[in-house]
Amino acid sequence: MKTGEFEALLKTSASAVGDFLDDTLSSNQLVAGTPHHLLNAMRHGVLNGGKRLRPFLLCEVVKLFDGNPKAAMQVALAVECIHSYSLVHDDLPAMDDDDLRRGKPTVHKAFDEATAILAGDALLTLAFGLVASVEAISAETRIKLITLLSKKAGAPGMVGGQILDMQANGKPRSEIEITRMQAMKTGALISYACEAGALVAGASEEDRTRMRRYGENVGIAFQLADDLLDETGDAAIVGKTIGKDREQGKQTLAQIYGKRALEDRLAALVKGAEEMVEPFGERGAILVEAARFVSYRKH
Amino acid sequence: MKTGEFEALLKTSASAVGDFLDDTLSSNQLVAGTPHHLLNAMRHGVLNGGKRLRPFLLCEVVKLFDGNPKAAMQVALAVECIHSYSLVHDDLPAMDDDDLRRGKPTVHKAFDEATAILAGDALLTLAFGLVASVEAISAETRIKLITLLSKKAGAPGMVGGQILDMQANGKPRSEIEITRMQAMKTGALISYACEAGALVAGASEEDRTRMRRYGENVGIAFQLADDLLDETGDAAIVGKTIGKDREQGKQTLAQIYGKRALEDRLAALVKGAEEMVEPFGERGAILVEAARFVSYRKH
Repeated sequence: MKTGEFEALLKTSASAVGDFLDDTLSSNQLVAGTPHHLLNAMRHGVLNGGKRLRPFLLCEVVKLFDGNPKAAMQVALAVECIHSYSLVHDDLPAMDDDDLRRGKPTVHKAFDEATAILAGDALLTLAFGLVASVEAISAETRIKLITLLSKKAGAPGMVGGQILDMQANGKPRSEIEITRMQAMKTGALISYACEAGALVAGASEEDRTRMRRYGENVGIAFQLADDLLDETGDAAIVGKTIGKDREQGKQTLAQIYGKRALEDRLAALVKGAEEMVEPFGERGAILVEAARFVSYRKH
Repeated sequence: MKTGEFEALLKTSASAVGDFLDDTLSSNQLVAGTPHHLLNAMRHGVLNGGKRLRPFLLCEVVKLFDGNPKAAMQVALAVECIHSYSLVHDDLPAMDDDDLRRGKPTVHKAFDEATAILAGDALLTLAFGLVASVEAISAETRIKLITLLSKKAGAPGMVGGQILDMQANGKPRSEIEITRMQAMKTGALISYACEAGALVAGASEEDRTRMRRYGENVGIAFQLADDLLDETGDAAIVGKTIGKDREQGKQTLAQIYGKRALEDRLAALVKGAEEMVEPFGERGAILVEAARFVSYRKH
Protein backbone atom coordinates (compact mmCIF):
# COMPACT_ATOMS: atom_id res chain seq x y z
CA MET A 1 0.00 0.00 0.00
CA LYS A 2 1.32 3.44 -0.93
CA THR A 3 1.36 6.29 1.59
CA GLY A 4 -1.06 8.26 -0.56
CA GLU A 5 -3.54 5.38 -0.59
CA PHE A 6 -3.39 5.04 3.17
CA GLU A 7 -3.90 8.77 3.67
CA ALA A 8 -6.96 8.66 1.42
CA LEU A 9 -8.35 5.75 3.45
CA LEU A 10 -7.74 7.59 6.73
CA LYS A 11 -9.39 10.69 5.33
CA THR A 12 -12.51 8.81 4.26
CA SER A 13 -12.71 7.20 7.67
CA ALA A 14 -12.24 10.57 9.43
CA SER A 15 -15.08 12.03 7.44
CA ALA A 16 -17.41 9.16 8.41
CA VAL A 17 -16.39 9.44 12.07
CA GLY A 18 -17.06 13.18 11.93
CA ASP A 19 -20.56 12.54 10.58
CA PHE A 20 -21.32 9.98 13.29
CA LEU A 21 -20.03 12.35 15.98
CA ASP A 22 -22.24 15.08 14.55
CA ASP A 23 -25.26 12.76 14.73
CA THR A 24 -24.40 11.65 18.26
CA LEU A 25 -24.05 15.24 19.43
CA SER A 26 -27.40 16.22 18.03
CA SER A 27 -29.70 13.29 18.52
CA ASN A 28 -28.30 10.65 20.88
CA GLN A 29 -30.65 10.21 23.84
CA LEU A 30 -27.66 10.62 26.17
CA VAL A 31 -27.57 14.34 25.32
CA ALA A 32 -31.33 14.95 25.06
CA GLY A 33 -32.20 18.01 27.15
CA THR A 34 -28.69 19.51 27.11
CA PRO A 35 -28.68 23.34 27.25
CA HIS A 36 -27.91 24.71 23.75
CA HIS A 37 -24.90 26.73 24.85
CA LEU A 38 -23.23 23.63 26.34
CA LEU A 39 -24.08 21.45 23.37
CA ASN A 40 -22.61 24.05 20.99
CA ALA A 41 -19.38 24.12 22.98
CA MET A 42 -19.22 20.31 23.01
CA ARG A 43 -19.75 20.26 19.25
CA HIS A 44 -17.06 22.90 18.76
CA GLY A 45 -14.63 20.75 20.75
CA VAL A 46 -15.40 17.52 18.91
CA LEU A 47 -16.21 18.52 15.33
CA ASN A 48 -12.75 19.95 14.73
CA GLY A 49 -11.61 18.18 11.59
CA GLY A 50 -9.20 15.92 13.45
CA LYS A 51 -7.45 12.94 11.85
CA ARG A 52 -9.62 10.57 13.97
CA LEU A 53 -6.67 8.21 14.28
CA ARG A 54 -8.00 6.43 17.38
CA PRO A 55 -11.40 5.59 15.85
CA PHE A 56 -9.62 4.44 12.68
CA LEU A 57 -7.37 2.06 14.60
CA LEU A 58 -10.25 0.73 16.71
CA CYS A 59 -12.44 0.03 13.68
CA GLU A 60 -9.56 -1.57 11.75
CA VAL A 61 -8.77 -3.92 14.65
CA VAL A 62 -12.45 -4.89 14.85
CA LYS A 63 -12.39 -5.58 11.10
CA LEU A 64 -9.26 -7.73 11.49
CA PHE A 65 -11.17 -10.01 13.88
CA ASP A 66 -14.46 -9.89 11.97
CA GLY A 67 -16.28 -8.03 14.73
CA ASN A 68 -19.46 -5.96 14.51
CA PRO A 69 -18.71 -2.70 12.64
CA LYS A 70 -21.61 -0.82 14.25
CA ALA A 71 -20.44 -1.66 17.75
CA ALA A 72 -16.90 -0.73 16.69
CA MET A 73 -18.03 2.72 15.58
CA GLN A 74 -19.91 3.50 18.79
CA VAL A 75 -16.93 2.59 20.98
CA ALA A 76 -14.73 4.55 18.57
CA LEU A 77 -16.93 7.63 19.02
CA ALA A 78 -16.57 7.31 22.79
CA VAL A 79 -12.77 7.18 22.47
CA GLU A 80 -12.85 10.28 20.25
CA CYS A 81 -15.02 12.11 22.81
CA ILE A 82 -12.36 11.32 25.43
CA HIS A 83 -9.57 12.48 23.11
CA SER A 84 -11.49 15.68 22.29
CA TYR A 85 -12.26 16.50 25.92
CA SER A 86 -8.56 16.10 26.74
CA LEU A 87 -7.68 18.63 24.03
CA VAL A 88 -10.31 21.09 25.26
CA HIS A 89 -8.89 20.94 28.81
CA ASP A 90 -5.23 20.88 27.68
CA ASP A 91 -5.78 24.06 25.67
CA LEU A 92 -7.03 26.01 28.73
CA PRO A 93 -4.98 29.02 29.94
CA ALA A 94 -4.04 27.14 33.13
CA MET A 95 -2.63 24.30 31.01
CA ASP A 96 -1.02 24.75 27.57
CA ASP A 97 -2.78 28.08 26.93
CA ASP A 98 -3.50 27.59 23.24
CA ASP A 99 -5.75 29.99 21.34
CA LEU A 100 -5.96 27.95 18.15
CA ARG A 101 -6.43 24.31 17.27
CA ARG A 102 -6.37 23.28 13.63
CA GLY A 103 -6.69 26.95 12.73
CA LYS A 104 -9.94 27.42 14.68
CA PRO A 105 -10.31 29.18 18.05
CA THR A 106 -10.06 26.73 20.96
CA VAL A 107 -13.25 26.19 22.97
CA HIS A 108 -12.32 28.67 25.72
CA LYS A 109 -11.61 31.29 23.04
CA ALA A 110 -14.79 30.66 21.05
CA PHE A 111 -16.85 30.52 24.28
CA ASP A 112 -15.20 31.13 27.66
CA GLU A 113 -13.10 29.24 30.19
CA ALA A 114 -15.99 28.04 32.37
CA THR A 115 -17.81 26.73 29.31
CA ALA A 116 -14.66 24.97 28.08
CA ILE A 117 -14.14 23.24 31.43
CA LEU A 118 -17.78 22.12 31.51
CA ALA A 119 -17.86 21.06 27.85
CA GLY A 120 -14.83 18.87 28.55
CA ASP A 121 -16.51 17.38 31.61
CA ALA A 122 -19.65 16.71 29.60
CA LEU A 123 -17.75 14.97 26.75
CA LEU A 124 -15.90 12.76 29.23
CA THR A 125 -19.16 11.82 30.94
CA LEU A 126 -20.86 11.18 27.60
CA ALA A 127 -18.08 8.81 26.50
CA PHE A 128 -18.88 6.32 29.26
CA GLY A 129 -22.58 6.47 28.44
CA LEU A 130 -21.79 5.71 24.80
CA VAL A 131 -19.79 2.59 25.66
CA ALA A 132 -22.47 1.48 28.13
CA SER A 133 -25.15 1.68 25.46
CA VAL A 134 -23.52 -0.34 22.65
CA GLU A 135 -26.29 -2.85 22.13
CA ALA A 136 -24.53 -5.24 19.75
CA ILE A 137 -22.09 -6.53 22.38
CA SER A 138 -22.73 -8.23 25.73
CA ALA A 139 -23.02 -6.33 28.99
CA GLU A 140 -19.93 -8.23 30.23
CA THR A 141 -17.85 -6.95 27.30
CA ARG A 142 -19.13 -3.42 27.79
CA ILE A 143 -18.12 -3.60 31.46
CA LYS A 144 -14.61 -4.74 30.46
CA LEU A 145 -14.38 -1.86 27.98
CA ILE A 146 -15.49 0.66 30.62
CA THR A 147 -13.17 -0.61 33.35
CA LEU A 148 -10.21 -0.49 30.97
CA LEU A 149 -11.21 2.96 29.68
CA SER A 150 -11.40 4.30 33.23
CA LYS A 151 -7.78 3.23 33.80
CA LYS A 152 -6.32 4.18 30.43
CA ALA A 153 -8.04 7.58 30.21
CA GLY A 154 -7.79 8.30 33.93
CA ALA A 155 -5.36 8.90 36.78
CA PRO A 156 -2.93 6.05 35.94
CA GLY A 157 -3.20 6.79 32.20
CA MET A 158 -3.91 9.86 30.10
CA VAL A 159 -4.74 12.30 32.93
CA GLY A 160 -1.69 11.14 34.91
CA GLY A 161 0.50 11.66 31.85
CA GLN A 162 -0.77 15.21 31.46
CA ILE A 163 0.10 15.93 35.12
CA LEU A 164 3.64 14.64 34.57
CA ASP A 165 3.94 16.80 31.46
CA MET A 166 2.72 19.92 33.32
CA GLN A 167 5.06 19.29 36.23
CA ALA A 168 8.06 18.99 33.94
CA ASN A 169 7.66 22.45 32.37
CA GLY A 170 11.05 24.11 32.45
CA LYS A 171 12.68 21.29 34.40
CA PRO A 172 15.22 18.85 32.98
CA ARG A 173 13.82 15.34 32.56
CA SER A 174 15.47 11.98 32.17
CA GLU A 175 14.76 9.68 29.25
CA ILE A 176 12.88 7.33 31.58
CA GLU A 177 10.68 10.14 32.87
CA ILE A 178 9.86 11.39 29.39
CA THR A 179 9.10 7.89 28.12
CA ARG A 180 6.77 7.18 31.08
CA MET A 181 5.00 10.49 30.55
CA GLN A 182 4.51 9.86 26.82
CA ALA A 183 3.33 6.30 27.35
CA MET A 184 0.65 7.61 29.69
CA LYS A 185 -0.31 10.89 28.02
CA THR A 186 -0.53 9.70 24.43
CA GLY A 187 0.20 5.98 24.44
CA ALA A 188 -2.53 4.91 26.87
CA LEU A 189 -5.53 6.03 24.81
CA ILE A 190 -4.11 4.92 21.44
CA SER A 191 -3.26 1.56 22.96
CA TYR A 192 -6.75 1.44 24.48
CA ALA A 193 -8.32 2.00 21.07
CA CYS A 194 -6.48 -1.03 19.69
CA GLU A 195 -7.15 -3.29 22.69
CA ALA A 196 -10.80 -2.18 22.76
CA GLY A 197 -11.09 -3.27 19.13
CA ALA A 198 -9.98 -6.77 20.14
CA LEU A 199 -12.48 -6.76 23.01
CA VAL A 200 -15.37 -5.59 20.83
CA ALA A 201 -14.62 -8.35 18.31
CA GLY A 202 -14.27 -11.02 21.01
CA ALA A 203 -10.66 -11.81 20.01
CA SER A 204 -8.59 -14.28 22.05
CA GLU A 205 -6.59 -13.17 25.09
CA GLU A 206 -3.41 -13.58 23.05
CA ASP A 207 -4.69 -11.43 20.21
CA ARG A 208 -5.90 -8.85 22.70
CA THR A 209 -2.35 -8.63 24.09
CA ARG A 210 -0.96 -8.32 20.56
CA MET A 211 -3.30 -5.43 19.81
CA ARG A 212 -2.46 -3.68 23.09
CA ARG A 213 1.26 -3.96 22.33
CA TYR A 214 0.75 -2.84 18.75
CA GLY A 215 -1.11 0.18 20.13
CA GLU A 216 1.59 0.94 22.69
CA ASN A 217 4.20 1.06 19.93
CA VAL A 218 2.02 3.22 17.72
CA GLY A 219 1.18 5.51 20.66
CA ILE A 220 4.80 6.15 21.58
CA ALA A 221 5.73 6.56 17.92
CA PHE A 222 2.92 9.11 17.54
CA GLN A 223 4.36 11.24 20.33
CA LEU A 224 7.96 10.92 19.13
CA ALA A 225 6.95 11.92 15.62
CA ASP A 226 5.23 14.94 17.18
CA ASP A 227 8.38 15.89 19.06
CA LEU A 228 10.43 15.49 15.91
CA LEU A 229 8.04 17.67 13.93
CA ASP A 230 8.21 20.30 16.65
CA GLU A 231 12.01 20.37 16.25
CA THR A 232 12.47 19.93 12.53
CA GLY A 233 9.10 20.17 10.85
CA ASP A 234 7.93 22.70 8.29
CA ALA A 235 5.38 25.00 9.96
CA ALA A 236 3.44 25.37 6.70
CA ILE A 237 2.95 21.59 6.42
CA VAL A 238 2.63 20.79 10.14
CA GLY A 239 0.00 23.50 10.48
CA LYS A 240 1.18 24.80 13.85
CA THR A 241 4.00 26.78 15.44
CA ILE A 242 7.32 24.95 15.35
CA GLY A 243 9.73 24.95 18.32
CA LYS A 244 6.99 25.40 20.93
CA ASP A 245 8.37 22.69 23.22
CA ARG A 246 11.81 24.29 23.33
CA GLU A 247 10.32 27.75 23.82
CA GLN A 248 8.20 26.52 26.76
CA GLY A 249 11.26 24.85 28.27
CA LYS A 250 9.81 21.37 27.68
CA GLN A 251 12.60 18.89 27.22
CA THR A 252 11.77 16.26 24.59
CA LEU A 253 13.61 13.17 23.44
CA ALA A 254 14.27 14.98 20.15
CA GLN A 255 16.33 17.50 22.10
CA ILE A 256 18.17 14.89 24.16
CA TYR A 257 19.02 12.52 21.34
CA GLY A 258 18.88 14.57 18.19
CA LYS A 259 17.10 13.83 14.93
CA ARG A 260 19.12 10.81 13.84
CA ALA A 261 18.76 8.79 17.05
CA LEU A 262 15.05 9.57 17.17
CA GLU A 263 14.54 8.33 13.63
CA ASP A 264 16.27 5.06 14.62
CA ARG A 265 13.94 4.79 17.55
CA LEU A 266 10.88 5.40 15.41
CA ALA A 267 12.04 2.68 13.02
CA ALA A 268 12.34 0.27 15.98
CA LEU A 269 8.82 1.13 17.15
CA VAL A 270 7.40 0.54 13.65
CA LYS A 271 9.20 -2.81 13.58
CA GLY A 272 7.72 -3.70 16.98
CA ALA A 273 4.23 -2.80 15.75
CA GLU A 274 4.72 -4.85 12.57
CA GLU A 275 5.74 -7.90 14.59
CA MET A 276 2.49 -7.77 16.52
CA VAL A 277 0.37 -7.96 13.36
CA GLU A 278 2.67 -10.36 11.47
CA PRO A 279 0.56 -13.48 12.18
CA PHE A 280 -2.35 -11.90 10.29
CA GLY A 281 -0.39 -11.61 7.05
CA GLU A 282 -2.00 -9.54 4.31
CA ARG A 283 -5.06 -8.86 6.49
CA GLY A 284 -2.86 -6.81 8.85
CA ALA A 285 -1.47 -4.65 6.04
CA ILE A 286 -3.54 -1.60 6.94
CA LEU A 287 -2.39 -1.69 10.55
CA VAL A 288 1.23 -1.92 9.37
CA GLU A 289 0.63 1.06 7.12
CA ALA A 290 -0.99 2.96 10.01
CA ALA A 291 2.11 2.45 12.18
CA ARG A 292 4.30 3.72 9.36
CA PHE A 293 2.05 6.69 8.67
CA VAL A 294 2.02 7.72 12.34
CA SER A 295 5.81 7.48 12.60
CA TYR A 296 6.88 9.08 9.34
CA ARG A 297 4.17 11.69 8.88
CA LYS A 298 5.07 15.23 7.94
CA HIS A 299 2.05 16.77 9.73
CA MET B 1 -36.77 9.86 65.30
CA LYS B 2 -35.36 13.11 66.72
CA THR B 3 -33.24 15.45 64.58
CA GLY B 4 -30.27 14.87 66.89
CA GLU B 5 -30.50 11.11 66.37
CA PHE B 6 -30.63 11.49 62.62
CA GLU B 7 -27.65 13.84 62.59
CA ALA B 8 -25.65 11.34 64.64
CA LEU B 9 -26.56 8.59 62.16
CA LEU B 10 -25.54 10.72 59.20
CA LYS B 11 -22.26 11.58 60.93
CA THR B 12 -21.40 7.93 61.56
CA SER B 13 -22.21 7.10 57.95
CA ALA B 14 -20.10 10.04 56.70
CA SER B 15 -17.15 8.83 58.70
CA ALA B 16 -17.44 5.32 57.23
CA VAL B 17 -17.77 6.71 53.69
CA GLY B 18 -14.70 8.87 54.30
CA ASP B 19 -12.70 5.80 55.35
CA PHE B 20 -13.80 3.82 52.28
CA LEU B 21 -12.93 6.77 50.02
CA ASP B 22 -9.52 6.96 51.67
CA ASP B 23 -8.97 3.24 51.02
CA THR B 24 -10.15 3.53 47.43
CA LEU B 25 -7.84 6.46 46.77
CA SER B 26 -4.84 4.63 48.09
CA SER B 27 -5.21 1.02 47.10
CA ASN B 28 -7.91 0.46 44.47
CA GLN B 29 -6.37 -1.08 41.37
CA LEU B 30 -8.10 1.61 39.27
CA VAL B 31 -5.63 4.19 40.63
CA ALA B 32 -2.53 1.95 40.75
CA GLY B 33 0.34 3.78 39.05
CA THR B 34 -1.13 7.27 39.48
CA PRO B 35 1.53 9.99 39.87
CA HIS B 36 1.74 11.03 43.55
CA HIS B 37 1.04 14.69 42.89
CA LEU B 38 -2.20 13.88 41.10
CA LEU B 39 -3.28 11.34 43.70
CA ASN B 40 -2.65 13.87 46.49
CA ALA B 41 -4.82 16.44 44.71
CA MET B 42 -7.58 13.88 44.17
CA ARG B 43 -7.44 12.96 47.86
CA HIS B 44 -7.56 16.64 48.84
CA GLY B 45 -10.68 17.08 46.74
CA VAL B 46 -12.48 14.02 48.07
CA LEU B 47 -11.40 13.69 51.70
CA ASN B 48 -12.90 17.02 52.69
CA GLY B 49 -15.12 16.15 55.63
CA GLY B 50 -18.33 16.48 53.60
CA LYS B 51 -21.76 15.38 54.86
CA ARG B 52 -21.73 12.48 52.34
CA LEU B 53 -25.47 12.90 51.86
CA ARG B 54 -25.58 11.14 48.48
CA PRO B 55 -23.80 7.98 49.70
CA PHE B 56 -26.06 7.98 52.77
CA LEU B 57 -29.22 8.12 50.68
CA LEU B 58 -27.98 5.47 48.25
CA CYS B 59 -27.06 3.05 51.03
CA GLU B 60 -30.35 3.66 52.89
CA VAL B 61 -32.37 2.95 49.75
CA VAL B 62 -30.40 -0.28 49.21
CA LYS B 63 -31.15 -1.23 52.85
CA LEU B 64 -34.85 -0.51 52.32
CA PHE B 65 -34.94 -3.13 49.55
CA ASP B 66 -32.58 -5.60 51.30
CA GLY B 67 -29.84 -5.17 48.71
CA ASN B 68 -26.15 -5.97 49.03
CA PRO B 69 -24.52 -3.37 51.34
CA LYS B 70 -21.05 -3.86 49.87
CA ALA B 71 -22.28 -3.17 46.34
CA ALA B 72 -24.21 -0.18 47.72
CA MET B 73 -21.07 1.31 49.22
CA GLN B 74 -19.01 0.99 46.04
CA VAL B 75 -21.65 2.71 43.92
CA ALA B 76 -22.00 5.31 46.69
CA LEU B 77 -18.26 6.01 46.53
CA ALA B 78 -18.54 6.54 42.78
CA VAL B 79 -21.36 9.06 43.30
CA GLU B 80 -19.27 10.88 45.90
CA CYS B 81 -16.32 11.00 43.49
CA ILE B 82 -18.62 12.66 40.96
CA HIS B 83 -19.93 15.11 43.55
CA SER B 84 -16.37 15.91 44.69
CA TYR B 85 -15.06 16.46 41.17
CA SER B 86 -17.94 18.85 40.50
CA LEU B 87 -16.96 20.89 43.58
CA VAL B 88 -13.28 20.95 42.53
CA HIS B 89 -14.22 22.30 39.10
CA ASP B 90 -16.95 24.66 40.41
CA ASP B 91 -14.44 26.26 42.80
CA LEU B 92 -12.03 27.17 39.96
CA PRO B 93 -11.33 30.87 39.28
CA ALA B 94 -13.15 30.65 35.93
CA MET B 95 -16.25 29.33 37.71
CA ASP B 96 -17.27 30.30 41.29
CA ASP B 97 -13.72 31.33 42.25
CA ASP B 98 -13.75 30.01 45.81
CA ASP B 99 -10.56 29.87 47.90
CA LEU B 100 -12.02 27.87 50.75
CA ARG B 101 -14.26 24.84 51.11
CA ARG B 102 -15.22 23.68 54.58
CA GLY B 103 -12.48 25.89 55.97
CA LYS B 104 -9.73 24.25 53.92
CA PRO B 105 -8.04 25.67 50.79
CA THR B 106 -9.78 24.52 47.60
CA VAL B 107 -7.75 22.19 45.33
CA HIS B 108 -6.55 24.95 43.00
CA LYS B 109 -5.38 26.93 46.04
CA ALA B 110 -3.65 24.00 47.76
CA PHE B 111 -2.12 22.90 44.43
CA ASP B 112 -2.67 24.94 41.26
CA GLU B 113 -5.35 25.41 38.60
CA ALA B 114 -3.99 22.84 36.14
CA THR B 115 -3.78 20.24 38.89
CA ALA B 116 -7.33 21.02 40.04
CA ILE B 117 -8.71 20.62 36.52
CA LEU B 118 -6.89 17.30 36.08
CA ALA B 119 -7.77 16.01 39.57
CA GLY B 120 -11.42 16.67 38.75
CA ASP B 121 -11.10 14.87 35.41
CA ALA B 122 -9.42 11.94 37.15
CA LEU B 123 -12.13 11.65 39.82
CA LEU B 124 -14.86 11.72 37.19
CA THR B 125 -13.09 9.01 35.18
CA LEU B 126 -12.50 6.93 38.31
CA ALA B 127 -16.21 7.04 39.22
CA PHE B 128 -17.21 5.11 36.11
CA GLY B 129 -14.50 2.53 36.75
CA LEU B 130 -15.80 2.04 40.29
CA VAL B 131 -19.35 1.35 39.12
CA ALA B 132 -18.06 -0.97 36.39
CA SER B 133 -16.15 -3.05 38.91
CA VAL B 134 -18.87 -3.72 41.51
CA GLU B 135 -18.67 -7.49 41.53
CA ALA B 136 -21.72 -8.26 43.66
CA ILE B 137 -24.22 -7.12 41.01
CA SER B 138 -24.75 -8.32 37.46
CA ALA B 139 -23.04 -6.74 34.45
CA GLU B 140 -26.52 -5.78 33.15
CA THR B 141 -27.28 -3.81 36.32
CA ARG B 142 -23.88 -2.13 36.25
CA ILE B 143 -24.54 -1.08 32.64
CA LYS B 144 -27.89 0.42 33.68
CA LEU B 145 -26.20 2.29 36.53
CA ILE B 146 -23.50 3.65 34.19
CA THR B 147 -25.90 4.74 31.46
CA LEU B 148 -28.06 6.56 33.99
CA LEU B 149 -25.03 8.13 35.67
CA SER B 150 -23.77 9.42 32.32
CA LYS B 151 -27.07 11.24 31.83
CA LYS B 152 -27.62 12.49 35.37
CA ALA B 153 -24.05 13.66 35.94
CA GLY B 154 -23.52 14.84 32.37
CA ALA B 155 -24.69 17.34 29.78
CA PRO B 156 -28.44 16.91 30.35
CA GLY B 157 -27.95 16.75 34.15
CA MET B 158 -25.42 18.14 36.59
CA VAL B 159 -22.98 19.66 34.08
CA GLY B 160 -25.85 21.23 32.14
CA GLY B 161 -27.23 22.71 35.36
CA GLN B 162 -23.87 24.28 36.15
CA ILE B 163 -23.79 25.88 32.67
CA LEU B 164 -27.26 27.36 33.23
CA ASP B 165 -26.14 28.69 36.60
CA MET B 166 -22.98 30.27 35.14
CA GLN B 167 -24.93 31.84 32.27
CA ALA B 168 -27.38 33.44 34.67
CA ASN B 169 -24.77 35.36 36.66
CA GLY B 170 -26.01 38.90 36.98
CA LYS B 171 -29.05 38.32 34.76
CA PRO B 172 -32.63 38.17 35.97
CA ARG B 173 -34.12 34.68 35.85
CA SER B 174 -37.65 33.41 35.87
CA GLU B 175 -38.92 30.92 38.41
CA ILE B 176 -39.08 28.25 35.68
CA GLU B 177 -35.48 28.87 34.66
CA ILE B 178 -34.22 28.71 38.24
CA THR B 179 -36.18 25.55 38.97
CA ARG B 180 -34.87 23.83 35.83
CA MET B 181 -31.31 24.84 36.70
CA GLN B 182 -31.62 23.56 40.28
CA ALA B 183 -33.23 20.29 39.24
CA MET B 184 -30.27 19.67 36.93
CA LYS B 185 -27.39 21.08 38.97
CA THR B 186 -28.25 19.61 42.36
CA GLY B 187 -31.36 17.49 41.89
CA ALA B 188 -30.03 15.16 39.20
CA LEU B 189 -27.21 13.58 41.21
CA ILE B 190 -29.19 13.34 44.47
CA SER B 191 -32.05 11.76 42.57
CA TYR B 192 -29.55 9.45 40.86
CA ALA B 193 -28.23 8.30 44.22
CA CYS B 194 -31.73 7.25 45.27
CA GLU B 195 -32.66 5.59 41.96
CA ALA B 196 -29.27 3.85 41.85
CA GLY B 197 -30.03 2.39 45.29
CA ALA B 198 -33.20 0.83 43.88
CA LEU B 199 -31.24 -0.53 40.88
CA VAL B 200 -28.47 -2.00 43.05
CA ALA B 201 -31.08 -3.76 45.20
CA GLY B 202 -33.01 -5.04 42.20
CA ALA B 203 -36.21 -3.23 43.27
CA SER B 204 -39.28 -3.25 41.02
CA GLU B 205 -39.79 -0.68 38.27
CA GLU B 206 -42.48 0.98 40.42
CA ASP B 207 -40.20 1.23 43.45
CA ARG B 208 -37.42 2.55 41.27
CA THR B 209 -39.72 5.34 40.11
CA ARG B 210 -40.70 6.05 43.72
CA MET B 211 -37.07 6.37 44.72
CA ARG B 212 -36.28 8.62 41.76
CA ARG B 213 -39.18 10.92 42.67
CA TYR B 214 -38.23 10.87 46.35
CA GLY B 215 -34.70 11.90 45.28
CA GLU B 216 -35.98 14.65 43.00
CA ASN B 217 -37.90 16.20 45.88
CA VAL B 218 -34.96 15.91 48.25
CA GLY B 219 -32.60 17.32 45.61
CA ILE B 220 -34.69 20.42 44.97
CA ALA B 221 -35.28 20.87 48.71
CA PHE B 222 -31.52 20.67 49.26
CA GLN B 223 -30.91 23.53 46.86
CA LEU B 224 -33.78 25.66 48.20
CA ALA B 225 -32.54 25.20 51.77
CA ASP B 226 -29.14 26.31 50.53
CA ASP B 227 -30.61 29.43 48.95
CA LEU B 228 -32.53 30.19 52.14
CA LEU B 229 -29.38 29.78 54.28
CA ASP B 230 -27.53 32.10 51.92
CA GLU B 231 -30.19 34.75 52.55
CA THR B 232 -31.04 34.29 56.20
CA GLY B 233 -28.52 31.86 57.74
CA ASP B 234 -26.07 32.49 60.53
CA ALA B 235 -22.56 32.55 59.03
CA ALA B 236 -21.08 31.00 62.18
CA ILE B 237 -23.40 27.98 61.93
CA VAL B 238 -23.55 27.70 58.12
CA GLY B 239 -19.75 27.81 58.01
CA LYS B 240 -19.50 29.98 54.91
CA THR B 241 -20.03 33.55 53.74
CA ILE B 242 -23.69 34.58 53.78
CA GLY B 243 -25.24 36.65 50.99
CA LYS B 244 -22.82 35.42 48.32
CA ASP B 245 -25.57 34.77 45.77
CA ARG B 246 -26.91 38.32 46.09
CA GLU B 247 -23.40 39.78 45.97
CA GLN B 248 -22.60 37.83 42.78
CA GLY B 249 -25.86 38.98 41.26
CA LYS B 250 -27.30 35.46 41.27
CA GLN B 251 -31.05 35.60 41.54
CA THR B 252 -32.45 32.80 43.74
CA LEU B 253 -36.00 31.77 44.55
CA ALA B 254 -35.37 33.07 48.10
CA GLN B 255 -35.01 36.55 46.61
CA ILE B 256 -38.01 36.26 44.31
CA TYR B 257 -40.44 34.82 46.84
CA GLY B 258 -39.05 35.73 50.23
CA LYS B 259 -38.48 33.53 53.25
CA ARG B 260 -42.10 32.65 54.02
CA ALA B 261 -43.05 31.40 50.57
CA LEU B 262 -39.86 29.40 50.34
CA GLU B 263 -40.58 27.69 53.65
CA ASP B 264 -44.02 26.71 52.33
CA ARG B 265 -42.37 25.30 49.25
CA LEU B 266 -39.89 23.30 51.29
CA ALA B 267 -42.75 21.85 53.35
CA ALA B 268 -44.48 20.77 50.13
CA LEU B 269 -41.30 19.08 48.89
CA VAL B 270 -40.89 17.22 52.18
CA LYS B 271 -44.51 16.10 51.92
CA GLY B 272 -43.89 14.89 48.36
CA ALA B 273 -40.85 12.93 49.50
CA GLU B 274 -42.81 11.39 52.38
CA GLU B 275 -45.54 10.22 50.04
CA MET B 276 -43.01 8.31 47.97
CA VAL B 277 -41.79 6.26 50.94
CA GLU B 278 -45.21 5.94 52.62
CA PRO B 279 -45.84 2.35 51.39
CA PHE B 280 -42.78 1.18 53.33
CA GLY B 281 -44.14 2.32 56.68
CA GLU B 282 -41.71 2.32 59.58
CA ARG B 283 -38.93 0.96 57.35
CA GLY B 284 -38.95 4.23 55.42
CA ALA B 285 -38.58 6.37 58.57
CA ILE B 286 -34.92 7.19 57.97
CA LEU B 287 -35.62 8.41 54.43
CA VAL B 288 -38.44 10.60 55.77
CA GLU B 289 -36.05 12.01 58.36
CA ALA B 290 -33.42 12.58 55.68
CA ALA B 291 -35.88 14.66 53.62
CA ARG B 292 -36.71 16.74 56.72
CA PHE B 293 -33.06 17.18 57.66
CA VAL B 294 -32.12 18.35 54.17
CA SER B 295 -34.98 20.86 54.10
CA TYR B 296 -34.80 22.30 57.60
CA ARG B 297 -31.07 22.18 58.25
CA LYS B 298 -29.27 25.18 59.71
CA HIS B 299 -25.94 24.39 57.99
